[in-house]
Amino acid sequence: MIGFASGADPFRREKSRENNDLARNFKLTIAYDGSDFAGWQVQPGLRTIQGSLMDAIARVTRDKVMLHGSGRTDAGVHALAQVASFVSESPIPASNLIIALNDALPESIRVTAAEEVAMDFHPRKTAKAKTYRYRIWRDSVCSPFVARYVYHHPWPLDDEAMTRAAAAVEGEHDFTSFAAVDPDRLRRIAEAEDGDDEAPSNVRTVFSSHFRREGSELVYEVRGSGFLHHMVRNFVGTFLLIGKRTLTPDDVARILAAKDRSANPGATSPASGLALVSVEY
Amino acid sequence: MIGFASGADPFRREKSRENNDLARNFKLTIAYDGSDFAGWQVQPGLRTIQGSLMDAIARVTRDKVMLHGSGRTDAGVHALAQVASFVSESPIPASNLIIALNDALPESIRVTAAEEVAMDFHPRKTAKAKTYRYRIWRDSVCSPFVARYVYHHPWPLDDEAMTRAAAAVEGEHDFTSFAAVDPDRLRRIAEAEDGDDEAPSNVRTVFSSHFRREGSELVYEVRGSGFLHHMVRNFVGTFLLIGKRTLTPDDVARILAAKDRSANPGATSPASGLALVSVEY
Repeated sequence: MIGFASGADPFRREKSRENNDLARNFKLTIAYDGSDFAGWQVQPGLRTIQGSLMDAIARVTRDKVMLHGSGRTDAGVHALAQVASFVSESPIPASNLIIALNDALPESIRVTAAEEVAMDFHPRKTAKAKTYRYRIWRDSVCSPFVARYVYHHPWPLDDEAMTRAAAAVEGEHDFTSFAAVDPDRLRRIAEAEDGDDEAPSNVRTVFSSHFRREGSELVYEVRGSGFLHHMVRNFVGTFLLIGKRTLTPDDVARILAAKDRSANPGATSPASGLALVSVEY
Repeated sequence: MIGFASGADPFRREKSRENNDLARNFKLTIAYDGSDFAGWQVQPGLRTIQGSLMDAIARVTRDKVMLHGSGRTDAGVHALAQVASFVSESPIPASNLIIALNDALPESIRVTAAEEVAMDFHPRKTAKAKTYRYRIWRDSVCSPFVARYVYHHPWPLDDEAMTRAAAAVEGEHDFTSFAAVDPDRLRRIAEAEDGDDEAPSNVRTVFSSHFRREGSELVYEVRGSGFLHHMVRNFVGTFLLIGKRTLTPDDVARILAAKDRSANPGATSPASGLALVSVEY
């Protein structure tokens, strides 16, 4: 190997083009404060998480790569451990990748783990479960140190009713009533750059769904097989109506059965409170 | 009282001018994320904590007031419970003041308590002790959710030596070696708008000074009678040199005795890690 700088070895370049023997699949675990980003997905002229990561990867590996995420998070939504992957011929060790990428990234995005994985690993297609958390700040004054990460709701809530409502979405259901209305969804799926083959079904399984009190916060945590667009924020919006006693926990089954967003009077709760906690494979 | 709107009672206005019977002294407790501010003190054309609060008070009370703080925090420094006061003839109940001021303030500044106090209460002059905290993030990757509130120092440190060094500043000392060099200090004190009569002495008493480990953080906490400009950040800068074994804990006594900032090779540690925790009266 001595004498061949990685970029200056013509044999190596040719070989990689022939059968891609040198291509490696890198899995990244990423934490981000989404407050100042226009969401995960690359959009022309906007500062996005995916775009910032792809820029950093290009600078570090000299490869223009496509970075696949486990899913898109909306503008203002955070992640404790988003998972993404990209294929590159870069000879960089995965451990060096963490340091090099974090040097190239803003402080609000951090790569917390990097490893080489099998070529058939795909962050979204092979995901088994995801966990999201929604933080509601209950005190009258919201701490300036968490304002970016919570939804401030100091008014009375029936925690008990909300707990019952949360349990009512557990199980396998068609969650259309809790999904963003998106007439362009099928077209966008067909056109997706990564050849997205997501089934158009709105059936998902929620493994667990519950509220807990943590100091000044009411924290909602939900683990499921997958989530539709706005599904967690729409859950919380409906649970808040139940907490205010505008609806009752029994209304959840009726809303689910309608399979119609307009049958659900709950608003989409603010993005700031939401964070992707983990993705399981 | 019925029939007299507070602002439309000429007798009341006149009486207040005569002998100021209606003047009330309001004490505020304030939390702020200092990241996006040019420090506490009002400065023309800059966004400051004191300036933002005075704007909010003017909007709520219709009074142009001078807001006195317990001390100035530098650009990027935070506060969990800064204390400030202002005199106003506004009839607003102190409890309503919290809500009204927070409505008028950015989310990064929160009034957490408001009460009417005796006219001789002055946040700085009557303060008995202050506590500051400095957070050092020790893990290789810094969480994006605390990056604004810590100093990221992932390199090796001798915690034991730093603990001994911290104890060495306890007691009554002339802290000139740990104060910002400021040739204009006496002039600025004489000119200070609030008639500041701070003694030019650099003698202060440090009641307690210690490090503790908290998860991924090494936290320094210091409680003292008062602090010179940059004193806590200069303490930490010197303790970090001791942690890196460039200096030893025994050097602290020598540096103190020199009463000369240039005898202290420690840098002023970054503002982000520092927070004013509390002020005691």
